[in-house]
Amino acid sequence: MTAPAGAPGSPSTGRARLADVAALAGVSVGTASKALSGAGRMRPETRQRVLDAVEALGFRPNQHAQSLHTGRSWTVGLMTTDGIGRFSTPVLLGAEDALGAGKISVLLCDTRGDAIREQHHLRNLMDRRVDGIIVTGRRTDPRPPLTGITGLESIPVVYALSPSTDPGDMSVVTDDKGGAELAVEHLLSTGRTRIAHVTGPEHHAAARDRARHAVAHLGEAGLELSTGRVHFGEWSEAWGRRAADAVLRTTPGTDAFFCGNDQIARGVTDALRERGVGVPEDIAVVGYDNWDTMALASRPPLTTIDMNIAEIGRIAALRLLEAIDAGEASPGVRTVPCRLVVREST
Amino acid sequence: MTAPAGAPGSPSTGRARLADVAALAGVSVGTASKALSGAGRMRPETRQRVLDAVEALGFRPNQHAQSLHTGRSWTVGLMTTDGIGRFSTPVLLGAEDALGAGKISVLLCDTRGDAIREQHHLRNLMDRRVDGIIVTGRRTDPRPPLTGITGLESIPVVYALSPSTDPGDMSVVTDDKGGAELAVEHLLSTGRTRIAHVTGPEHHAAARDRARHAVAHLGEAGLELSTGRVHFGEWSEAWGRRAADAVLRTTPGTDAFFCGNDQIARGVTDALRERGVGVPEDIAVVGYDNWDTMALASRPPLTTIDMNIAEIGRIAALRLLEAIDAGEASPGVRTVPCRLVVREST
Repeated sequence: MTAPAGAPGSPSTGRARLADVAALAGVSVGTASKALSGAGRMRPETRQRVLDAVEALGFRPNQHAQSLHTGRSWTVGLMTTDGIGRFSTPVLLGAEDALGAGKISVLLCDTRGDAIREQHHLRNLMDRRVDGIIVTGRRTDPRPPLTGITGLESIPVVYALSPSTDPGDMSVVTDDKGGAELAVEHLLSTGRTRIAHVTGPEHHAAARDRARHAVAHLGEAGLELSTGRVHFGEWSEAWGRRAADAVLRTTPGTDAFFCGNDQIARGVTDALRERGVGVPEDIAVVGYDNWDTMALASRPPLTTIDMNIAEIGRIAALRLLEAIDAGEASPGVRTVPCRLVVREST
Repeated sequence: MTAPAGAPGSPSTGRARLADVAALAGVSVGTASKALSGAGRMRPETRQRVLDAVEALGFRPNQHAQSLHTGRSWTVGLMTTDGIGRFSTPVLLGAEDALGAGKISVLLCDTRGDAIREQHHLRNLMDRRVDGIIVTGRRTDPRPPLTGITGLESIPVVYALSPSTDPGDMSVVTDDKGGAELAVEHLLSTGRTRIAHVTGPEHHAAARDRARHAVAHLGEAGLELSTGRVHFGEWSEAWGRRAADAVLRTTPGTDAFFCGNDQIARGVTDALRERGVGVPEDIAVVGYDNWDTMALASRPPLTTIDMNIAEIGRIAALRLLEAIDAGEASPGVRTVPCRLVVREST
């Protein structure tokens, strides 16, 4: 960090620096910087001398220099807490898209769920004076808010997909209630009434929430699950196959499966086909996620719930920009609706 | 960008700015900045006054200010050209990991294969004075080098996974020759000699290269493909199923399939199982990618080739850091070896 400016071999050799502009204009670096940012008072002739030097040297306005005077870095931290996977990727892309349009650059940090890495990245983001931070993760379970770094309280933070446990924070989440209701409603509207629900581990909020809301929505229609209980297990095809076999054995009158994700739904569909059960003629299947690799490769392709994850990232970015511009956060949880994607499995 | 410093509601309100430090120390912003970066000559008393002011105000060393004097931003652009998908994600993570350890921050840019977006992001990266750029994409086909922005020639650029068409550039690529040879060698070592090859579209370099090297390696063993030709098609399970049916019909003596990716291999495996052909007892199957979702959900789980994509990202980052430190690039293509992952399909 202390290498002298213009050191031999520096990659910026050949680029005019602000110091060069200042020298040519006969002013201090601070004055040259002020002239470029438009901040501060100075004589018009002085500002013109600086602008002439910029022109003569082909100097590109340097955001670092401008940041000194505007107090904004036009940079936002995008922190993903558990690798960049199938769920956090669309959040990142949606956020990057919304921020890029506003000329905000995105500093990527991957903490891999490691507290030490998170602190390291946070310290770096604060040193770089980011204007705000978006935090995302794979799970819908609430996570503790960022903490432990001086200055953090003075910039806005938005939690996307994985909400903060603090209701005073800004969070943008998926609508698991609406998603479960869309799935159940669709099955009811196609005449199914004996619906089984196979989903992921009970300790995941996504599994618990979708199950609870599916059961409640069936209840409003005077119905209950065909098997009398939720089949919690894993987010895997193998679990879908095992669960389908169990349901066929114990509850042969079942006419539909609502599955907690597309991998489970694909496993269910494979098991049904291999037992000679027609999908959707005999039993309809609905998945969750609209993960094209699974939903389209399934035989038949899956009707499923799309969480609009990119929209979660986009809205998180827009809330962050609003908070940056307003200088204050509007706390609370914003919920992004799901949509039903109908294919041949229903 | 021209909002006055310390404007009401600015998110940085409450943070001491360099201007505050300078005012307290009774020096110019330029002098305060120089005192912090350690660059430039000044009287020790002056530097001490600035450091005392830093201490008194709780000012955090600001990388923007330091960048003015060191000529380095300690920031690298990470540009992905076609969304962030299954292939570019591990490149990004590998690169982020290597750069983060070196206290370099990563500016994320997603160009989505759009030339206008690429220019927009490049301009932004240059304005932010990045120390270098890593370019990555989903395909292994060479891509034209970045161009069209002043100053680009003065910073190093490394192409990861998708190499540059210019051999004078720095590229880090996967070893498709080695990968194809590992797959063929493994099948030969388990006693298979009548091997079919089913892969993706012929206009993809990954499909062409793996096919060419597989055929050549069989040739060295005095063998040729069981069906006498490469089966080019799509990177999909449906294509794998169709191709397996065709091979069973036309070339029943085939005792192994080497597939261009794991989706094709999974389709082949499904079709064989559904026709009552034992995998691996009757026919062995090898995939490519080691994509766990496909390779582990397959019945049986797939033997496959792992391209070590995160390592491609890591090596790209290390080459970039070397070039930044040395002030000059060491051009050429670096190849990262694959590894064979043996599971039950062979």
